[in-house]
Amino acid sequence: MMDNSPRRLADPDENLARRVFIENVQPSVDDGRYPIKRTPGEEVEVTADVFADGHDVLVVMLRYRPAAASAWQETPMRFFGNDRWRASFPITSLAPYCYSIIGWVDSFATWREEVRKKATAGQDVESELLEGAAMVAKAADRASPVDREFLVDRAAQLVDNGQPGAVRLETGLAPDLQTLMSRYPDRARATEHPTLTVDVDPVHARFSAWYELFPRSTTSEPGRSGTFRDAEGLLPYVAHMGFDILYLPPIHPIGRTHRKGPNNTLGAGPEDPGSPWAIGAAEGGHDTVHPELGTLEDFRHFVEAAHGHGLMVALDIAFQCSPDHPWVREHPEWFRHRPDGTIKYAENPPKKYQDVYPLDFECREWQALWQALAEVVLFWMEQGVTIFRVDNPHTKPLRFWAWLIGQIRATRPDAIFLAEAFTRPAVMYSLAKAGFNQSYTYFTWRNTRHEITAYLTELTRSGVREFFRPNFFVNTPDILPEFLQFGGRPAFLARLVLAATLSGSYGVYSGFELCEAEALPGTEEYRDSEKFQIRPRDWNQPGSLADFIRRVNRIRRENPALSHNFHLRFYPVDNEQILCYGKATPDNSNIILVAVNLDPHHAHEGWLQLPVGEFGIGEAEPYQVHDLLGAGRYLWQGTRNYLRLDPTSTPAQIFLLRRRVRTERDFDYFM
Amino acid sequence: MMDNSPRRLADPDENLARRVFIENVQPSVDDGRYPIKRTPGEEVEVTADVFADGHDVLVVMLRYRPAAASAWQETPMRFFGNDRWRASFPITSLAPYCYSIIGWVDSFATWREEVRKKATAGQDVESELLEGAAMVAKAADRASPVDREFLVDRAAQLVDNGQPGAVRLETGLAPDLQTLMSRYPDRARATEHPTLTVDVDPVHARFSAWYELFPRSTTSEPGRSGTFRDAEGLLPYVAHMGFDILYLPPIHPIGRTHRKGPNNTLGAGPEDPGSPWAIGAAEGGHDTVHPELGTLEDFRHFVEAAHGHGLMVALDIAFQCSPDHPWVREHPEWFRHRPDGTIKYAENPPKKYQDVYPLDFECREWQALWQALAEVVLFWMEQGVTIFRVDNPHTKPLRFWAWLIGQIRATRPDAIFLAEAFTRPAVMYSLAKAGFNQSYTYFTWRNTRHEITAYLTELTRSGVREFFRPNFFVNTPDILPEFLQFGGRPAFLARLVLAATLSGSYGVYSGFELCEAEALPGTEEYRDSEKFQIRPRDWNQPGSLADFIRRVNRIRRENPALSHNFHLRFYPVDNEQILCYGKATPDNSNIILVAVNLDPHHAHEGWLQLPVGEFGIGEAEPYQVHDLLGAGRYLWQGTRNYLRLDPTSTPAQIFLLRRRVRTERDFDYFM
Repeated sequence: MMDNSPRRLADPDENLARRVFIENVQPSVDDGRYPIKRTPGEEVEVTADVFADGHDVLVVMLRYRPAAASAWQETPMRFFGNDRWRASFPITSLAPYCYSIIGWVDSFATWREEVRKKATAGQDVESELLEGAAMVAKAADRASPVDREFLVDRAAQLVDNGQPGAVRLETGLAPDLQTLMSRYPDRARATEHPTLTVDVDPVHARFSAWYELFPRSTTSEPGRSGTFRDAEGLLPYVAHMGFDILYLPPIHPIGRTHRKGPNNTLGAGPEDPGSPWAIGAAEGGHDTVHPELGTLEDFRHFVEAAHGHGLMVALDIAFQCSPDHPWVREHPEWFRHRPDGTIKYAENPPKKYQDVYPLDFECREWQALWQALAEVVLFWMEQGVTIFRVDNPHTKPLRFWAWLIGQIRATRPDAIFLAEAFTRPAVMYSLAKAGFNQSYTYFTWRNTRHEITAYLTELTRSGVREFFRPNFFVNTPDILPEFLQFGGRPAFLARLVLAATLSGSYGVYSGFELCEAEALPGTEEYRDSEKFQIRPRDWNQPGSLADFIRRVNRIRRENPALSHNFHLRFYPVDNEQILCYGKATPDNSNIILVAVNLDPHHAHEGWLQLPVGEFGIGEAEPYQVHDLLGAGRYLWQGTRNYLRLDPTSTPAQIFLLRRRVRTERDFDYFM
Repeated sequence: MMDNSPRRLADPDENLARRVFIENVQPSVDDGRYPIKRTPGEEVEVTADVFADGHDVLVVMLRYRPAAASAWQETPMRFFGNDRWRASFPITSLAPYCYSIIGWVDSFATWREEVRKKATAGQDVESELLEGAAMVAKAADRASPVDREFLVDRAAQLVDNGQPGAVRLETGLAPDLQTLMSRYPDRARATEHPTLTVDVDPVHARFSAWYELFPRSTTSEPGRSGTFRDAEGLLPYVAHMGFDILYLPPIHPIGRTHRKGPNNTLGAGPEDPGSPWAIGAAEGGHDTVHPELGTLEDFRHFVEAAHGHGLMVALDIAFQCSPDHPWVREHPEWFRHRPDGTIKYAENPPKKYQDVYPLDFECREWQALWQALAEVVLFWMEQGVTIFRVDNPHTKPLRFWAWLIGQIRATRPDAIFLAEAFTRPAVMYSLAKAGFNQSYTYFTWRNTRHEITAYLTELTRSGVREFFRPNFFVNTPDILPEFLQFGGRPAFLARLVLAATLSGSYGVYSGFELCEAEALPGTEEYRDSEKFQIRPRDWNQPGSLADFIRRVNRIRRENPALSHNFHLRFYPVDNEQILCYGKATPDNSNIILVAVNLDPHHAHEGWLQLPVGEFGIGEAEPYQVHDLLGAGRYLWQGTRNYLRLDPTSTPAQIFLLRRRVRTERDFDYFM
């Protein structure tokens, strides 16, 4: 527990001394119970209320270190009014960090300020000079030999040594003495805040564009499963669109018992491939590749080929088994049993999922089970995979995930875990606190301006942003949102721009770029879902959004403002159907403005209110907005500007905002 | 530290079991580091996020007890959506309380829900009945002998005993079995939140009207100090105005050395009485009564006489000494010294306060000093005083106050400490966290509608309300606000109504009711301040607000809505000069509406938007507003109603809102 509480006086001698209070330290998650999250290259800006009784001068230092280091580095915090202090430290390595704050009363600086005021008022300071001499002499005892000599000398000069008072006063107030006194503070009575921690993740945890692909669908012959070799042929296509991460649903052998047929029907035919999430068959379980996809060697080849195209491969972690999984035979103790000894399949009464056996994370042999699951993750990391999309983590104990992720990342800080949880906010946030590096979100169902603004404000402007990193998927094999079912091509364009520019990380499930929109009636399920069928596609069909996606992903890479969520701001437009927002780097060197028409059916226009002053642009100064999607360039001025978005041509615009700089040559130059 | 963190797995066996999470418990101050504050008769409404993985049924109990009791009382918390749970407990005695939350997975209730769903869908539940039997048998092991018999019997009935399945199902789902199973839950895997605490204070800490009076001014002969006997003569006057607490500035002997003359001048004449805050003279120090006021016996008589008029007496605690204080001689070690051995007077360079020696709370002998100061408080409590207004607490160490208040209240929970701190918010709030039961505020300088609304929202709608109890003084001997200096009588009326109805506690320094408004030019200091002079007054002069104050204080006493701050709400009026707000008891049995014209110079009118639905009044229903100050009664209807406030007659209105109730006799009755 925090030990700077005025209520704790167990050791009054010790406590009495600590007059400084450190409160309301930001960022921190649940009062320091959980780490904040950062990536290498980011700064951690720390603020706190630091104060004491009275009016003494305080020194406040931000302390930080990699968790494995023993020595703190310190940087002074700056006062910015109303007892608030601020400083930053950089994250430079892929390892956990610690930070804290220490503060103390600076008696010498306090003395200096008072003596200066008295002298300025013409008051006698003879007595004060003696007090100063005593302070300097004490500091000398703490100093290095060279500095000690200097301090002893100054202490002697401060006492009445025949020199005029004015000369001695000057000695006492001299900056070099203050500098040296600051080097040897008396910290015996310093207050230190309990240590806070930072989880440091790979940059992809914060900034990544995902593409989801069923490798078995990369076939040209209906009826034959695509293989990893086939999938390699699609790597240039995915790379062309500018994605960073290629995510594959489970690649393991699929159970035959109670296998599901097309559209989730019972009684699959002999040719039906089954759901990849019904993991395990005679050929093996979670550490085995489905023979129809190829060999483990083929998979490794695929991963390396992907790397060659600048793509990381992400695998699916679905900790559940088909009735044919080897563990059912080898470790029946890891499953739940009926009184008659048979193993229970998954149920959500009255629904039954006979093709899936859930694991019993609370079984007597849970330690062996947990270890086996950790080894599954490590096995795939050995094959070159560092990114995992975790299926339904909210139906397994939170403490299991905290343990698993902690175990893995202790030796493999390059691992990234994405939580595929669609459940209540408290549980989704708790998974992120437990260690998930990215999380699925409600974005898929946020369509109106109010919904998007409220949700993004929660994600980027509240404490949530310190531990929960959103990944905005526009669709998934489980979710074909109604907005896409009925909005046509403009809806696909708008949702892509929203996902790619609102969130540092976003994802697309294949078929999106072909505007696939056919659902089972009254549901968000795809008709003839790829979950249960092999679905070859003509990637070159007319109307594909591949080139549009390529342009958006290039804009993301070329504009660092889009790589971070903290600086998102929404701007008012007097038309509820137009959403406008901006992102900027902290130094305003890169400013992106996005406008989206949320109505896929009608053109909309409106007046935007843009607080240009926040970007350092005067009301009277013109500035350039460069439409990065359409390539047009416009001169704007002031806060009020006109927008028109026609969904049949441009449902969205992404502007680069260039401030005007006048040069001595007197022509306009935009930077 | 909280032990329900998923990151803590030191004892994995233990942790694994606790699937329930308890987060975001409200109310709590700084994550439980400080107590919340309540008074006897209040309820503590507790809410929390409580959840687990999956969809199992949870049981969540609120636990509470007086801190001195060893056994918890428990009351079930109710789920109200989105993982939030709520319950309340009553504070029934003047002693600290503890509270906590405990939650666990209810396996039997989960089983019951699933079995019911399966049976409804016509599925076979034979296996489930056997599982149920096993649960019931286990619970039997935990049960009392009588209940055990019942449970053993039911367990036997659930297994296949020849009875039809439907009969056994009915047995399993029977409410009496659920009731008994709930009585013997398996709490081995329960999660318990760390204990939180409640400081319980006398009701006056929350609801009190203060009147500040210099007893030496209760004289009719200029030049002679009034005495406690004289002051007794004024008790009926103060009681008539309806105040609860009569607060006296320091009553101790006043130093002669460097005594201040009228208007804080140097070089007092022999007849000048000096400032009561320059405490201590040859006659004694903090435990002595100024001889000119009378004897200690007179003071006790005065306190008893006040009690007879329904008035508590509050004393001033100013822990500082005049140069003539006996401690200067007896305990020079409790003061700060110059290098030449002389004692330092108070300074705020370049200002000097030669008539005051500050105590050195950090001196080597601090323990003896702190003890002596605690004994000062205990001494006056023995004389019948339980309420203390503490002078400038922010210039003494916060830990000292935490210690002092903790010491005193451990044996005297009837003590109330009011912090007279006017400083930065972090320090004012820290004093309240350290234990002060009431606090001075910035109210004195909040005049516009925006200022008042923003400040009261912070005080009553944020976490601040749990530990910081405002006392709104309309004036003090140190502060004659500009609004009163220039606003005339309407300003006095408006500010009184604001203070008395916005805050449960408020205060008036004498002379306010006579509209005294003469300041030293350019300052908020009273001209010829009573701090340095004896100021007899004619209490019966025409224009006195005494009767108005009496009416307002009576309204406060007769309307419980005004005794609490938590339920304050502001309502929009389309005229920025009219402030309108309401307070209601939680059950809406008492609803008060206040409208104040903030402009003392002009009449204002406007339309009020009142969300009558919140009071259970339909849009079409008429309701009565009874002007408790003016006595008029008006029929209003709906949300939009007209207000007009003319400062020359009624700058403020206090309405009692009566809902209409139709009776079978078909005449209108308002309750």
